[in-house]
Amino acid sequence: MATMAIEKVKSFIRDVPDFPKPGVVFKDITPLLQNPTLFKSTVEKMAGPFRRKGITHVASVESRGFIFGAPVAYQLDAGFIPVRKKGKLPYKTAAFDYELEYGTDTLEIHADALDASSRVLVIDDVLATGGTAHATCKLVEKLKAKVVGMSFVIELEFLHGREKLRGYDVLTLIRY
Amino acid sequence: MATMAIEKVKSFIRDVPDFPKPGVVFKDITPLLQNPTLFKSTVEKMAGPFRRKGITHVASVESRGFIFGAPVAYQLDAGFIPVRKKGKLPYKTAAFDYELEYGTDTLEIHADALDASSRVLVIDDVLATGGTAHATCKLVEKLKAKVVGMSFVIELEFLHGREKLRGYDVLTLIRY
Repeated sequence: MATMAIEKVKSFIRDVPDFPKPGVVFKDITPLLQNPTLFKSTVEKMAGPFRRKGITHVASVESRGFIFGAPVAYQLDAGFIPVRKKGKLPYKTAAFDYELEYGTDTLEIHADALDASSRVLVIDDVLATGGTAHATCKLVEKLKAKVVGMSFVIELEFLHGREKLRGYDVLTLIRY
Repeated sequence: MATMAIEKVKSFIRDVPDFPKPGVVFKDITPLLQNPTLFKSTVEKMAGPFRRKGITHVASVESRGFIFGAPVAYQLDAGFIPVRKKGKLPYKTAAFDYELEYGTDTLEIHADALDASSRVLVIDDVLATGGTAHATCKLVEKLKAKVVGMSFVIELEFLHGREKLRGYDVLTLIRY
């Protein structure tokens, strides 16, 4: 995205202090979603570099990941694969446990969602520690599918998520 | 949608018995999402009848609502407004309590998400009892915006959700 366009998108991301807990400054993307032109151009910028890469499916983690992942799938003529917290998907699943700051969490994908012929783009709103993004890649690979790349709106560089995603093609539009 | 196309979409909705609890047959839309052609045509059929209605925003309830709401917003050149469970939205919110089978639940919308000039399409995957859809309309109206219509993939007619939504323009693609 041109520098001016990035500055414009940045001006529609709101800092909310002390959310979800004291001391954390939350990057609120809802003003960006609310703006039809910026929402559209953000989706297109996330999808663009992967347009000629033979993407068959977009995978995203609930809930905010769905907001960008589903229109990117639509834009790329790909299928959409929801990755969800434990117990939310109704059919047979593959699961992956990942570490949080305190304790662990589990993400699931439907066991028949992908196969060895699938070429997957992973989409989320924010790359923070990279924990959920890494777990999503592992779920895709458990189903023998290939992670072609990953695309995020925001990268919080001070959390070093990129290190956890070494070896993957990672695109981020806005960095803090 | 032509009858044949509807039958095709229906064949990609999977019945999962006893989910989320014994005795309930869950309509699993993930095989539909997974199919690029059907996902795209479903989004277009949900948006189509509202294309010339001056929709400025699409509002959807997390999580599955986001999967159709965000691409419909993209398709209609509209903004996207997430409606979420209590405590999930970071900024100032308007809230609406609604009744469940046992107890109540609360949905929230950002207080600055819409205003009197907004013309809103409400999107969700399934119209069941109509409780969350009705709550979403009330939240939109609390912000002085107009609900122009509502569009769902699936309607479970035996739950009579339409009665709760009387007075609104309700479109559903597939009925059981």
